[in-house]
Amino acid sequence: MTAVEELNHKGSLAKNASYALATLSTSVKNQALLAMADALQQEETWILEENRKDLDAGKEQGMSEGLLDRLALSHARIDAMAEGLRQIAELPDPVGETLTQTTRPNGLQIDKVRVPLGVIGIIYEARPNVTADAAGLCIKSGNAVILRGGKEALHSNCAIVKVMQNAGYAAGLPEGCINLVENTQRESATALMRLNQYLDVIIPRGGAGLIRAVLENATVPAIETGTGNCHVYVDASANLTMAKEIVINAKTQRPSVCNAQEKLLVHESVAEKFLPGMLTALQKKSVTIIGDERVCALFPDAIPATEEDWETEYLDLKIGVKVVSSPDEAIAHINRYNSRHSEAIITEDMEIAQKFQKEIDAAAVYVNASTRFTDGFEFGFGAEIGISTQKIHARGPMGLAELTSTKYVITGTGQIRG
Amino acid sequence: MTAVEELNHKGSLAKNASYALATLSTSVKNQALLAMADALQQEETWILEENRKDLDAGKEQGMSEGLLDRLALSHARIDAMAEGLRQIAELPDPVGETLTQTTRPNGLQIDKVRVPLGVIGIIYEARPNVTADAAGLCIKSGNAVILRGGKEALHSNCAIVKVMQNAGYAAGLPEGCINLVENTQRESATALMRLNQYLDVIIPRGGAGLIRAVLENATVPAIETGTGNCHVYVDASANLTMAKEIVINAKTQRPSVCNAQEKLLVHESVAEKFLPGMLTALQKKSVTIIGDERVCALFPDAIPATEEDWETEYLDLKIGVKVVSSPDEAIAHINRYNSRHSEAIITEDMEIAQKFQKEIDAAAVYVNASTRFTDGFEFGFGAEIGISTQKIHARGPMGLAELTSTKYVITGTGQIRG
Repeated sequence: MTAVEELNHKGSLAKNASYALATLSTSVKNQALLAMADALQQEETWILEENRKDLDAGKEQGMSEGLLDRLALSHARIDAMAEGLRQIAELPDPVGETLTQTTRPNGLQIDKVRVPLGVIGIIYEARPNVTADAAGLCIKSGNAVILRGGKEALHSNCAIVKVMQNAGYAAGLPEGCINLVENTQRESATALMRLNQYLDVIIPRGGAGLIRAVLENATVPAIETGTGNCHVYVDASANLTMAKEIVINAKTQRPSVCNAQEKLLVHESVAEKFLPGMLTALQKKSVTIIGDERVCALFPDAIPATEEDWETEYLDLKIGVKVVSSPDEAIAHINRYNSRHSEAIITEDMEIAQKFQKEIDAAAVYVNASTRFTDGFEFGFGAEIGISTQKIHARGPMGLAELTSTKYVITGTGQIRG
Repeated sequence: MTAVEELNHKGSLAKNASYALATLSTSVKNQALLAMADALQQEETWILEENRKDLDAGKEQGMSEGLLDRLALSHARIDAMAEGLRQIAELPDPVGETLTQTTRPNGLQIDKVRVPLGVIGIIYEARPNVTADAAGLCIKSGNAVILRGGKEALHSNCAIVKVMQNAGYAAGLPEGCINLVENTQRESATALMRLNQYLDVIIPRGGAGLIRAVLENATVPAIETGTGNCHVYVDASANLTMAKEIVINAKTQRPSVCNAQEKLLVHESVAEKFLPGMLTALQKKSVTIIGDERVCALFPDAIPATEEDWETEYLDLKIGVKVVSSPDEAIAHINRYNSRHSEAIITEDMEIAQKFQKEIDAAAVYVNASTRFTDGFEFGFGAEIGISTQKIHARGPMGLAELTSTKYVITGTGQIRG
C-alpha cells in the first residue's frame, strides 16, 4: 500500500467515524477514555517490549542520548499516559454548548452551538506519549484523529494505538475514530497535509523544521504551534530583585521548551546596576551570554550579538541581551523579532505595564511574571494540545474548546427571504 | 517594480500601520469611516470617470453583460458604498473586549482580550464595491488591509482607495493602513498568498477557482469562503405548502449566490404527491430539472442526473432532485456531497428536525426556513466580510468579531514556575 492509499483508506474510516463520534454522549466518551487508560497499564509489558525495539534501532543508528530519552517509555511514563487520559475524562465536554441565542425580527431562532472540528491530523516527532495524549484530547472533544508520529517511534506508537483502539472500540467509540499512519516516510507526512477530502485541520507538534514544512506544504487548514523567541524586558522602574528571579526562572528552569526566555532587554537607566549581577548569576547556571555593544562593554564575557541572534530561538542555555533607551524601543524590538508567543515586562509603573500589554503582539503578554506559565495546565485548561502562535482560530495554549468549531442551528416557521 | 517588490513595500507599510491601528480609539476609527463615506460621495464624478475606463476596456475585450454589470458603478452604487461605511461606523467596536478573566491559585490574573488580527489580505474579483466594504470592515476591527482586486476593475479600485486613503489619513488613521495592489497579474495574487512576513490572514472573496487557488498556494493562514452546494430536504411529515414556498424562494430568489438552493431531496412517501407540482412550479420559473431515476419516472421533463451533478454548485436556474427513503439517507447524502454551507429540512416532526440539525455537517442548518438567510445582515451582525465554509477560526457569516484574534494579558507579582 502506498502512503496515499493508506491515507485515503484511513481518512475515509476517520471521516465516517467522525459523524458518529460528533453526537456520542459524554459518558460513553469518558468510559472509553478510562478503559483506554486501564488498558495501557494492563498492556505495559507488551508496550515496553515494542518500545525496546525502537530504542534498540535508535541506538544502532547512533541516536543522541537526548532523543533516546524522549523515545524511551517506562513504568512511570506509561502510568503518566494513563493518568493523562483519566484527567481528560474528568474535564467538561465542550461539545453541544450553546454559545449564543438570537431571535431575529422575522422570528428565526438562531443558536450558535459548539461542535467538533471533525477529523484532526496530528503530525509529531519522537515522543510516543504524544500518541495517547493527542488521541485522548481529540476523542474527548468529539473528533476522529489521524496520528502521524516519527519513524523512530513506530513500534511504540503502533502498540499504544492498538491498545487504545481495542479498549476504546469495546467501550463504545465508533470504529475508525483513532488511526495511526504506519508509513513513516516523508511522503506520508506531505500526503496527510494535503488530505483535504477527509481532514478538517492539521496540527503539527514539533520543532521549527516541522512547522515550516506544514506551512509550506499543507492545503488542509493548519494551526501553527510552538516556536517561542520570548523576551523579558526589565524596565527603569522594575523591582530588580524580582527581575533577577524571573529571568533566572524563565531562562534556566527548562531551557528546551517554547515558553522559555530567549532574550533579555534592559532599560539603560538600570543597566549598569542590574546587568553585571544578573549576567554573572546566569553564567553560574551555565548560560552563555550574547550581548549588544553596550552589554559587551558592561560585561566583558559577553559574545557580540549578530542580527541572526535576535531572530533565533536558542532552546538552549544561551541568552541574547540588549540595552534599550525606552519602553517604546523595547516594544518595537520585540514586535520586530518575536515569534508572537510569550513576552514579559518587569516594572512597577502600571501605566508602562498597560502600554506594554496593549502594544506587544503576542499570544501571552506578562507583567511581573515568568514567561514559563504559557501552558494549558498553568492556565487552568486541564490539558493542552499545543500552543498556537498564529492568530486565527486559537492563540496561545489550546485546550479542549480549541479543538472545536461552531455551527448555526436555525429554527423557523416557514420563513422565506424577501 | 515587480509584484514581489510592490507587495514587500506595501506589506511593510501595512505592518507598521497595524501597530498604531490596533490601539486607535473607536471614535477616531468611526470619524475616519464617516469621512471616507463623505469623500466617496464628494468624489463621485472622478470615481465614475475612472470606472468608465474599466467599462470601456471591458467592452472592448468582449466582457459578458453579467460581468459588466458587476463592474459598473453608478450614483446609486456609490451612495450604497458610502452608506455601508456609515453603517460600519455605527456597529460596536469588537477590539478590547475582555472575553474571560481568571485568577489562578498562584495569584496570576489571566485576561483573554479581543485584539485585531493585524494585517488582512483580501483577494477578490470584479466588483469594485468590495473595495470600500472590505476596507471599512478591516479598519473598524483595527486591522490594516492589503486589497487585491481583479484587473478588470483596477482604475475603479485605484480611485476608491485613493479617496479613502486621503480622507481616512486626514481623519487620523495611521498612514499605510489601507493598501491596494496595483500589479494585477496572476503573480501578484500568488505573492500575496505567500506574504507571511507581513500578513496575518488572507481572505478570498470570489468563485470556486479563486478559492481553490488560495487553498493550493497560500502559506498565509486563509479563511475559505463561499462555495454553497445547499440542499433542502422535504421530510415525510413536511407541510408541503411551506416546502413549496421555501424551495421556490431558496432556488429562484437569487440563484447566483452561495446560499441559494442547489439540490432538493424528497422523502419517498411524499414524492408522488409533492414533486410534480413542485417541479412544474420551478419549471415556470425557468429552472431546469435534473433528477435521479425515481424523479425522472415521476416527471418526464427531468434530465437524468450524473454523479457530477450531486457535487456541483450550479449558481444558475438549475436544480438536482432526488428521492430518498429515510431521513438517514438524506443526511448521509448531504454529508457526502455538500460544501458545509447551508442545509435545510422541512418537517413537522421535531425529533427528526433535531436529528437533522445535530447530524448535518454545515455552517448553518435550518428547520423550516430558506437557506437564503445565511448572511451577516440577516443574522444581525450588521455587516459581513464573507461566509466561512471551513471549520477553524470562523464558520458561517463573518462579521467584525470574526476579523479579530485574542491575546492573553497576564498580571503577576513576581510569580516564577516551580
